[in-house]
Amino acid sequence: MEKTLLELADLVGGVVAGDPGIVIKGLGTLETAREGQITFLANPRYAAKVNDTRASAIVLASGVDSFGLSAIVVENPYLAFAKLLTFFTTRPRSHRGIMPGAIIGEEVAIGEEASIYPGAVVGDRVVIGKRVTLHPNVTLYDDVVLGDDVTLHSGVSVRERCRIGNRVIIHNGTTIGGDGFGYAPDGAAYFKIPQIGIVIIEDDVEIGANAAVDRAALEVTRVGRGTKIDNLVQVGHNCLIGEDCIIVGQAGIAGSTRLGKHVTLGGQVAIAGHLTVGDGAMISGKSGVMSDVAPGEILSGTPAMPHKARLRSAAVFPHLPEMRKSLAKMGIRMARIEKHLDAASNVSITETSPE
Amino acid sequence: MEKTLLELADLVGGVVAGDPGIVIKGLGTLETAREGQITFLANPRYAAKVNDTRASAIVLASGVDSFGLSAIVVENPYLAFAKLLTFFTTRPRSHRGIMPGAIIGEEVAIGEEASIYPGAVVGDRVVIGKRVTLHPNVTLYDDVVLGDDVTLHSGVSVRERCRIGNRVIIHNGTTIGGDGFGYAPDGAAYFKIPQIGIVIIEDDVEIGANAAVDRAALEVTRVGRGTKIDNLVQVGHNCLIGEDCIIVGQAGIAGSTRLGKHVTLGGQVAIAGHLTVGDGAMISGKSGVMSDVAPGEILSGTPAMPHKARLRSAAVFPHLPEMRKSLAKMGIRMARIEKHLDAASNVSITETSPE
Amino acid sequence: MEKTLLELADLVGGVVAGDPGIVIKGLGTLETAREGQITFLANPRYAAKVNDTRASAIVLASGVDSFGLSAIVVENPYLAFAKLLTFFTTRPRSHRGIMPGAIIGEEVAIGEEASIYPGAVVGDRVVIGKRVTLHPNVTLYDDVVLGDDVTLHSGVSVRERCRIGNRVIIHNGTTIGGDGFGYAPDGAAYFKIPQIGIVIIEDDVEIGANAAVDRAALEVTRVGRGTKIDNLVQVGHNCLIGEDCIIVGQAGIAGSTRLGKHVTLGGQVAIAGHLTVGDGAMISGKSGVMSDVAPGEILSGTPAMPHKARLRSAAVFPHLPEMRKSLAKMGIRMARIEKHLDAASNVSITETSPE
Repeated sequence: MEKTLLELADLVGGVVAGDPGIVIKGLGTLETAREGQITFLANPRYAAKVNDTRASAIVLASGVDSFGLSAIVVENPYLAFAKLLTFFTTRPRSHRGIMPGAIIGEEVAIGEEASIYPGAVVGDRVVIGKRVTLHPNVTLYDDVVLGDDVTLHSGVSVRERCRIGNRVIIHNGTTIGGDGFGYAPDGAAYFKIPQIGIVIIEDDVEIGANAAVDRAALEVTRVGRGTKIDNLVQVGHNCLIGEDCIIVGQAGIAGSTRLGKHVTLGGQVAIAGHLTVGDGAMISGKSGVMSDVAPGEILSGTPAMPHKARLRSAAVFPHLPEMRKSLAKMGIRMARIEKHLDAASNVSITETSPE
Repeated sequence: MEKTLLELADLVGGVVAGDPGIVIKGLGTLETAREGQITFLANPRYAAKVNDTRASAIVLASGVDSFGLSAIVVENPYLAFAKLLTFFTTRPRSHRGIMPGAIIGEEVAIGEEASIYPGAVVGDRVVIGKRVTLHPNVTLYDDVVLGDDVTLHSGVSVRERCRIGNRVIIHNGTTIGGDGFGYAPDGAAYFKIPQIGIVIIEDDVEIGANAAVDRAALEVTRVGRGTKIDNLVQVGHNCLIGEDCIIVGQAGIAGSTRLGKHVTLGGQVAIAGHLTVGDGAMISGKSGVMSDVAPGEILSGTPAMPHKARLRSAAVFPHLPEMRKSLAKMGIRMARIEKHLDAASNVSITETSPE
Repeated sequence: MEKTLLELADLVGGVVAGDPGIVIKGLGTLETAREGQITFLANPRYAAKVNDTRASAIVLASGVDSFGLSAIVVENPYLAFAKLLTFFTTRPRSHRGIMPGAIIGEEVAIGEEASIYPGAVVGDRVVIGKRVTLHPNVTLYDDVVLGDDVTLHSGVSVRERCRIGNRVIIHNGTTIGGDGFGYAPDGAAYFKIPQIGIVIIEDDVEIGANAAVDRAALEVTRVGRGTKIDNLVQVGHNCLIGEDCIIVGQAGIAGSTRLGKHVTLGGQVAIAGHLTVGDGAMISGKSGVMSDVAPGEILSGTPAMPHKARLRSAAVFPHLPEMRKSLAKMGIRMARIEKHLDAASNVSITETSPE
């Protein structure tokens, strides 16, 4: 694959500074790119490295020194590089059809150009869109619906009646639609509440490996369009996750909680149940959220509080022992002064001290 | 399926207030129930909504206003509704036998009315009870024993010699009996300690998706009767979990720890190894328990402490920066007073101040 | 299997104290060992139990009272017992070849004495070493390379081009080489960055159940020789984990972080991305590490700080409410004194108090 710098600039919506006719055959980092390849500068911290790269061209932001290299100038070099990386390294998977060893149930509809690998098991009345790939040992329960261009990696399970949108990618071992965790205590033991709802995963969602999105008790657990979920994340039953959220690894969202759009949850975050997290809120890694979060808030800690205030309090935490000692000493000094003044005056300072 | 209100009252152990002959064909929430259906009021906060429901009858507690609706009066409306939901929405799964594509080992005993799906692999000398369902891509290693009415969802693995009781449900991707995490350091590297024990899952346990219960080093890791375990939970080797515990998503219990009966662990809780947690103890979500817990204690935080005291301390945490400043200012004011008094008197206040 | 005490002493590198000719047929704990068996004392806390054991011999450290039992004296009794346990209880798995129901791709090379179970699916151009065991429903994508004596338990997935060293054990459901979590925000949505790197798992690594090690964006995610990883752990893309690390259950390491050698991470630890953790560092369970860690440091808490200092601060935490009250009272007492002194003197103490 070869393209001129001009062609690549068009591809990423940038403009050429330098020679538009340079032929580019691939790409690499500032350190690894070779002659004939293009590289990128996204983080200004590495600006000096541009002078040392062996790349033949570079993607960078307006106003940044290219040290004489021909460049594609764009607003967002990281995004442009991601697009070039996609262009140079990914190819449409050739479709392989239903391979021997795949098991297909009754009344199943399969779109054109599907690839269904050995060991994949498809239940009855399942509907599968176009260009779908089911890797080995994927299990689709009865009445599942998959959109077009869906990729389910090996070991993924999609439970009965759940629905997956277009261009969804789910990595290995993840479960969509396991029963929500719902029991009615009867005083002694726990009575299982049937979980008869479903999960809907909207278009352009990606979910990492070994995650679990539970089906609703009665209605729908929903993951909104474009949301990206990392490995080992739990989404509880009845949750409604908005569009374009980022949920980092090992985070957990308890049942019936709603996330707005563009919410970011750091790794190992926990959100308690029945809460609302507003649009654009960001929760720092390892935080525990016990109450509603307003749109745009940036929180951290357990219980979560505004992130900057949290940093200030956390900075004091190591000083607690010395603060406690200092407070005790202050009490002794204060008592000594009070005693002195009592002795020196005819009214008592101490007898009116508050309890 | 149609039942009179009287028949449903008998089913849930309640009494009818109103017309016992009303015919009920299904159920819904206060908002979604339609004519001919029954609804319920469990949370007094929603009492006013009863007036607006279109349901033909309601399940509620004694003394609660039904706004003229015929009602089933019970002690625990949530439990009664769970029973009605089970009655109206769940059907015994029809058994499908050993389906083509299922692989059964040698000397395997399979009870009547089993359903073993394609892709399920059963090792040698496995014993399977009556009415067991093994979904696709379940793996049972050699010498596993399953009780009656067990449901193992797709991707579940049960390792060699582990034993599962009656009516146990295990959701997709969960591993029972992986090796415990045991190594003897030899100064440089780690020598693996063989994990030759087993796991016993007792009757009526339910375990969520992608959880992991490790086999004991020498003897037994046990999950007690009726205990419910959520997704992505880890139970370490040699743990003994009592009966009727609730262990919420992503919690982890390190090796050789014992939980009593009716213990509740919130989401993402961690319990260190070799501890004892007493009957009825409750640990708040995201807490870390580093020492034994007495029966009935309610703890939170890391390290865990009594929950109410924790809330009080956590409420002070945001004030730490102002407290530290205030303490510093107090020191300055104190020193000024001491200096003043020293100057005004013929004995020094400060020279006897404690270090 | 029978061995004399002398033969067993040679096996573990110890010396006999007592009768070297005693015949030993097995082993057990101090409580469970019977006549003809050998037991061990590793924890001095249990020294008194030696007097009560029914074992015929004991493994213990130099200078420890054997209460008259014949003994093998070693430097590290726990390690010696692990070796004896291995000797008495583990047998080389007999190889079973490629079993019916296993699916093997094109141009696959399989070493001698392999065991490939039904439901295992091996992609094209995969290379498999000698004495490898692939349990049921394992999936190897195209171009995977496995060393000798590798054991992959049921449900394990190894993604395209990833490489696994010799004697590696991976427990059930774990994913090696899922896509790293990398997206370029374009202002509205997120653009997926292709993850075209691989994972390399070096020799003698063991990984627990339902863990996830992500493939690098461009180059390599590496887990160093001898490292042991517990269940449900996440290793992010581009991470470089050193040799002989211990990573306990549910820990998570964000992308591009480097761990040195002999690093220990407790359960549920989180390490932020792009950090360096030095050789021999230890991070307590449930801690959150937000900055680089020097070699040998022992940290705990979130944000992590030196462990002993953390314990001291944590011990003050429950006293925060009383400290705050005490500080408030101190302010009142101080103000009263200042007022008193102002009244008694012709210069004001208070008017010069700092803000």
